[in-house]
Amino acid sequence: MFSMTQLVRRAAQNHGGVLATHDGNRSQTWAQFSERIARFAGGLHKLGVGAGDRVAILALNSDRYMEFMFGVPWAGAVFVPVNTRLAGPEIAYWLKDSGSKVLLVDGNFAAGVAAIRDQLESLEQLVFIDDGAVPEGCVPYAELLSAPAVPDAGRGDDDLAGLFYTGGTTGRSKGVMLSHRNLVGNVFQTLPVIGSKEGERTLHVAPMFHIADGFMCIIAAAMAHENYILPAFEPLATMRAIAEHRIDRVLMVPTMINMFVHHEQVGDHDLSSLRTVVYGASPMPEAVITRALEVLPDAQFFQAYGQTEASPILTVLRPEYHTIEGEHAGKLKSAGRSVLGVDLAVLDDDGNEVALGTVGEICAKGPNVMLGYRNLDEQTREALKDGWLHTGDGGYLDEDGFLFIVDRVKDMIVSGGENVFSAEVENAIYQHPDVDQCAVVGIPSDKWGEQVHAIIVPKPGTAPTEESIITFCREQIAGFKCPRSIVFRDEPLPLSGAGKILKNELRAPYWEGVDRAVN
Amino acid sequence: MFSMTQLVRRAAQNHGGVLATHDGNRSQTWAQFSERIARFAGGLHKLGVGAGDRVAILALNSDRYMEFMFGVPWAGAVFVPVNTRLAGPEIAYWLKDSGSKVLLVDGNFAAGVAAIRDQLESLEQLVFIDDGAVPEGCVPYAELLSAPAVPDAGRGDDDLAGLFYTGGTTGRSKGVMLSHRNLVGNVFQTLPVIGSKEGERTLHVAPMFHIADGFMCIIAAAMAHENYILPAFEPLATMRAIAEHRIDRVLMVPTMINMFVHHEQVGDHDLSSLRTVVYGASPMPEAVITRALEVLPDAQFFQAYGQTEASPILTVLRPEYHTIEGEHAGKLKSAGRSVLGVDLAVLDDDGNEVALGTVGEICAKGPNVMLGYRNLDEQTREALKDGWLHTGDGGYLDEDGFLFIVDRVKDMIVSGGENVFSAEVENAIYQHPDVDQCAVVGIPSDKWGEQVHAIIVPKPGTAPTEESIITFCREQIAGFKCPRSIVFRDEPLPLSGAGKILKNELRAPYWEGVDRAVN
Repeated sequence: MFSMTQLVRRAAQNHGGVLATHDGNRSQTWAQFSERIARFAGGLHKLGVGAGDRVAILALNSDRYMEFMFGVPWAGAVFVPVNTRLAGPEIAYWLKDSGSKVLLVDGNFAAGVAAIRDQLESLEQLVFIDDGAVPEGCVPYAELLSAPAVPDAGRGDDDLAGLFYTGGTTGRSKGVMLSHRNLVGNVFQTLPVIGSKEGERTLHVAPMFHIADGFMCIIAAAMAHENYILPAFEPLATMRAIAEHRIDRVLMVPTMINMFVHHEQVGDHDLSSLRTVVYGASPMPEAVITRALEVLPDAQFFQAYGQTEASPILTVLRPEYHTIEGEHAGKLKSAGRSVLGVDLAVLDDDGNEVALGTVGEICAKGPNVMLGYRNLDEQTREALKDGWLHTGDGGYLDEDGFLFIVDRVKDMIVSGGENVFSAEVENAIYQHPDVDQCAVVGIPSDKWGEQVHAIIVPKPGTAPTEESIITFCREQIAGFKCPRSIVFRDEPLPLSGAGKILKNELRAPYWEGVDRAVN
Repeated sequence: MFSMTQLVRRAAQNHGGVLATHDGNRSQTWAQFSERIARFAGGLHKLGVGAGDRVAILALNSDRYMEFMFGVPWAGAVFVPVNTRLAGPEIAYWLKDSGSKVLLVDGNFAAGVAAIRDQLESLEQLVFIDDGAVPEGCVPYAELLSAPAVPDAGRGDDDLAGLFYTGGTTGRSKGVMLSHRNLVGNVFQTLPVIGSKEGERTLHVAPMFHIADGFMCIIAAAMAHENYILPAFEPLATMRAIAEHRIDRVLMVPTMINMFVHHEQVGDHDLSSLRTVVYGASPMPEAVITRALEVLPDAQFFQAYGQTEASPILTVLRPEYHTIEGEHAGKLKSAGRSVLGVDLAVLDDDGNEVALGTVGEICAKGPNVMLGYRNLDEQTREALKDGWLHTGDGGYLDEDGFLFIVDRVKDMIVSGGENVFSAEVENAIYQHPDVDQCAVVGIPSDKWGEQVHAIIVPKPGTAPTEESIITFCREQIAGFKCPRSIVFRDEPLPLSGAGKILKNELRAPYWEGVDRAVN
């Protein structure tokens, strides 16, 4: 049986004395972790949580977040991690849609939840997971933990393990139903490619509510890692933690790596312990990875590509391809190759495989493909049409099986009858020495239908002009792909909780009142 | 879906140009391998092989053995590897019990099969897989391969992949039904622990009919290894192949390693490429592993413990524990710790877990536990009682999760009311400088019920006495465990196809006419 709780039981049996979590002043071994989640599960039962019930969490990263992820299935229930950047009505929607009976909340979000408490119809209990004064109406975490330990409920294989909601910033969020086989299977499929030693030291800085770090938590249990946990990403705190705890492994998204490697104090810390950096969730500009390889010469970089619906990893670009010269040159722009057990295909609109090098929709099969979207049968059928997970991403495969992602299919700009993939334009703009961040979107054009539009955050102390950027692009990509218009802004681009640039938000103002179904 | 054929399709997509098999003068890439097994499967269909039909093979190792293993499931059928050391009636029994319609045979076994052809009732077709003159009544392999390629039948998950027969030397063989999830799952569970790089060079010398090397073939497809294949183990040919092809990885059983590392020409070959030696199927005497570490100082040794019913790996002892000094000392006598996804427990006769350090029956759960024994519902129920695979092996767990195997439960000697585990006695005898091979069995004793009896093959040029061995043992183990009687012999001990000493065969003469159910 593939089971999340089995991973913890094995870690306790084989590595009981190894540190499981270190969070601030608190730390515990895997034997203690296993014993604590058995009591946590007992506490959930006392609160009335039964088999298959949903238990949600709204909190920054902590040791208790990890206890939640494994303790909820131990109780036979289903965990629902909530995006910490949502607005009140969105939180209410996630909890209602998932039918969560219990919500765990930390000190950062207790007041916000209290303010919308009357909108949370399904919710029966609020649990406060921080130490210290317990807000009114909340059950203290210590009370849950005072329950007698209960045996592992034995959930596994096709049993629903977690509900991960996608989107949530615009439109209707979908609850992705992931089974124990999906989540544990994906860890087993990916570990042979990214490698890991038992007892490694992992630093958690990416948000645990997102499946990218959720995946790292499951790897951590599978390999009995020592887990050092920061509440959220902050470049300086990350450097300090790496140096202090001699961290081996960290997952960051490219925007975090960008902030990290360009930080003015990055040279002041001993980062030599860091051996493995896993990144993903969005493409890495060449300039950023080049700098990262300079700053962290001993680290190996693994790019992981996937999506929540794939639990989440589909492909990995291994360290030896993070180079711009030699026999492996040219692969850095790819997302790597399929992990074990993943069938990868690029399909056209009729569901036929396209030729190598031809762009189409990236589709996948594997034990890691979701059970479906909760209560959304039609969207599930569409996403899993003909047995293939349709990722919604556009890309192509080369003759070595490397996957090149050109863009979200729905993000494609159609200008003058030509398809323009904004990632390609962004890659060109990122080469410009004065560019810190950029996003390329399609905006309405009387002449072209849509026109290619760039939003750019210049580097501090620089002031690039529209003309200089466009001229620069023309040297690298076809004229029709170059921006027709550019706006510069000082504040950073808006990011989703997973660190992706919120293109819909950038695009929206241009399309107000325009009668077109692009957005 | 967990699927053996998916591994090949992925290898062809990601590593199409990499060498898949090298056998004598023949070699092919993974793209060619994939294309060939699609035609092989087409050929099987032409022979009348349909969904779920059984196809057997009786042959030494070859590239075609690997084509068989993946080509049969590609055709939607079930593969049945036959032990090459069986006598005619035993072959007939395996083919009859499995209901095999087609048998692949090579030049070593064609005449033997022809002699028993009339006993093979279920058999419809014989396929001759060697090049050259085709024996009468056989379909040439080339004819199968001339069929048009067929699409992968898409077998996976709980579909039956292979039938592996256990035993077969005495008593009734049992057909172990292993699914795609069992076999592929076990590879995914084990790879994070034993590690492997894509494109590594694997040498196959252990018999492919046994699941130990069968497992290596599945790893080889999962990681797109280059596979160099010898028809069978021979120490000198093995050394030459390692040196010539710069082999990275090999699986051997301890008896093979013993012959290899003590061979007089072992120093004459450049074995420096060898990085990984996986061994298993029977325990490794300390003296042998000590010598192996001297001869192959750059190699990492992984001991794997399991059984066919577990597809086959349950535990692995990693290289850092192959030491007799330092912080890891004392673990070398163990079989290591559970691989990912395996629940390991030591149970007493009532099915209760015993305390750490206490001997009981080694039991396991996991996605790798067999579907059951073919047509043997009662034996299946017994082997999988209470959801645990009962291995029939006796052992105990220590506080670090290391499994120490003391003996086959049924192999235990009960002498004067004391339980004596023969492995412990053998380990003591093996320390003696004049001992090449030994086996300890229980023989009838008027006084003790059974008495501890040793059969010893001395090293060439030595002549140890019974008294010297017993005195030597008394220095290491309790008096009641020491042999009461010893016989010396010059010819090697009889081995099963898997390299295990055939204790039943050694024991049998002593028990003839004795009314006792010990065997």
